Amino acid sequence: MNKVNIPEKLACFRDHWNPRIVGELNGQHVKLVKFKGEFVWHKHDDEDEMFYVLQGEFKMEFRDKTVMLRENEFLIVPKGVEHRPVAVDEVSVMLFEPASTLNTGDTKGELTREALEKI
Amino acid sequence: MNKVNIPEKLACFRDHWNPRIVGELNGQHVKLVKFKGEFVWHKHDDEDEMFYVLQGEFKMEFRDKTVMLRENEFLIVPKGVEHRPVAVDEVSVMLFEPASTLNTGDTKGELTREALEKI
Repeated sequence: MNKVNIPEKLACFRDHWNPRIVGELNGQHVKLVKFKGEFVWHKHDDEDEMFYVLQGEFKMEFRDKTVMLRENEFLIVPKGVEHRPVAVDEVSVMLFEPASTLNTGDTKGELTREALEKI
Repeated sequence: MNKVNIPEKLACFRDHWNPRIVGELNGQHVKLVKFKGEFVWHKHDDEDEMFYVLQGEFKMEFRDKTVMLRENEFLIVPKGVEHRPVAVDEVSVMLFEPASTLNTGDTKGELTREALEKI
């Protein structure tokens, strides 16, 4: 039962689109990830996903609209909804989602990350 | 599917020990709460609970130790573990926990808040 310091954890990695697990509770994972550039369109059939911006900003694209997310803002993407994060500059994000969640959802490919590192 | 701006939500209320619901996903609630003073000792038999400090600091007391939590730090309190938050000055905290979680756990009393407001 140790506390987690978010800036310290963010300083542990520099790569993009590669979430790290920093907490687990009630079958959910708390993850940190850095985005830069365009991700892939995907959806999660069974998991809602929360994106909380710690530093920077990015836009979440949906098929019918775009939501700009800035520091201290969060968005919950419901299961089944196609989405694509796009970040012009690097952004640090905290994710809150079921432990079963795969980063690329139903679009497996080179950006898919399985067996995430715990830091 | 609207974004949530945390500072705007925090500006909506001023009372202490009265969590507001600002998000729901996968059967979990995202809540905002302000602490000031001493809460009651309690535990949650079935729910792990995450405390993320947005602004300020507080200490989480356990029966055998105390953890000081500052801005941008979080702590996960596992189910069954007795705890008591204490804040000398006001602190703003984000909670992640199952929708079933009662703020005072197994210690019902005047600080118990049921049917929380969604803001």
